Amino acid sequence: MKRELEHLLPADIERRSFEIISAELEGRGIVLPEETAPIVKRVIHTTADFDYAESLVFSPGVVETARAALRAGAAVVTDTQMARAGINKTSLARFGGEVRCFMSDPDVAAGAKENGTTRAVASMDKASALPGPLLFAVGNAPTALIRLCELISEGNLRPAAVIGVPVGFVNVVEAKELLLESGVPCIVARGRKGGSNVAAAIVNALLYGMEGGR
Amino acid sequence: MKRELEHLLPADIERRSFEIISAELEGRGIVLPEETAPIVKRVIHTTADFDYAESLVFSPGVVETARAALRAGAAVVTDTQMARAGINKTSLARFGGEVRCFMSDPDVAAGAKENGTTRAVASMDKASALPGPLLFAVGNAPTALIRLCELISEGNLRPAAVIGVPVGFVNVVEAKELLLESGVPCIVARGRKGGSNVAAAIVNALLYGMEGGR
Repeated sequence: MKRELEHLLPADIERRSFEIISAELEGRGIVLPEETAPIVKRVIHTTADFDYAESLVFSPGVVETARAALRAGAAVVTDTQMARAGINKTSLARFGGEVRCFMSDPDVAAGAKENGTTRAVASMDKASALPGPLLFAVGNAPTALIRLCELISEGNLRPAAVIGVPVGFVNVVEAKELLLESGVPCIVARGRKGGSNVAAAIVNALLYGMEGGR
Repeated sequence: MKRELEHLLPADIERRSFEIISAELEGRGIVLPEETAPIVKRVIHTTADFDYAESLVFSPGVVETARAALRAGAAVVTDTQMARAGINKTSLARFGGEVRCFMSDPDVAAGAKENGTTRAVASMDKASALPGPLLFAVGNAPTALIRLCELISEGNLRPAAVIGVPVGFVNVVEAKELLLESGVPCIVARGRKGGSNVAAAIVNALLYGMEGGR
């Protein structure tokens, strides 16, 4: 049991982790733009997967747009309870925002059944009626992302920004490309990879950058 | 917007995804043991990361041991609310179990502060007093895993099994090796990768295999 383990508290571990990530990115010859670097690094911190240094795509100005929405008290809408659990709600509340996830709502389940669709789609429909600026964080369901693109192109939704990082093997790559073509401010993990943990990490990185901290 | 998207419902998407994963594993020349294959595939399904086909390690008999505990109504203890959110609680409840996570408890925060340790450590201490069989699912904090190893070696905890899949850059690799050497039945993602989503996926795969389904 007497392996060499460093005795560090969480804040130290996080700082040390980001130093390691920065050094390894440099070693790989990857130079990230100053504005997006903390977001990419936090996703790598969450996944230990350097693929995200290549796959994360930011539409022009999306970081400032998303932060302006959060500063205005935007609600963050997720497509899983896991993403909701992973978002720092204390930090979000500082700006007046909260996380909304309708996936477990009985009316969403009923609506999905009635329309022969997924709960993810029905939950996006429900979210589109929310007032105020909205930041969507989709880490699981490509159907949620596709529905968001439809709502936007029909003129029935104008989100401040969409974080589109569902994970998977069916319709996932295509749904992300749809979002990238939609013209809406977005952060996308191109390819198959992503997840609720990645969605939450991106929201948290946006928030932490606003706090002047990490 | 008229890209070729397949119109499939979640159950179809999942089946199709597992077919793709199985085919790609075969294409890579990877043959998984029958007992552990559904667990490895579910982790790949959750992450779209085939590295887990190589990094997931199962101690002998751990799948049957963990399932016996779940069948006996074992509680599943997590080190994050995210892992708790990701575990299929309906499925778990069918066998009489529930998920416990003490990370947000005020006494855990107070205990961590008093002892100069992490909340993850304090939450494992609290969990060690739970009655009945326990299945630990650690997807985030290496300190939680290290504390579990200490409690076990001191004779103060005898978990049915430990899922040790924390993610990160500091003490993570070492903590997992400690667990592998502890002799306790365990499932470990060797190396840096892992996460709350991976921990939840492993618990769910154990449960789904008991239901005779997926």
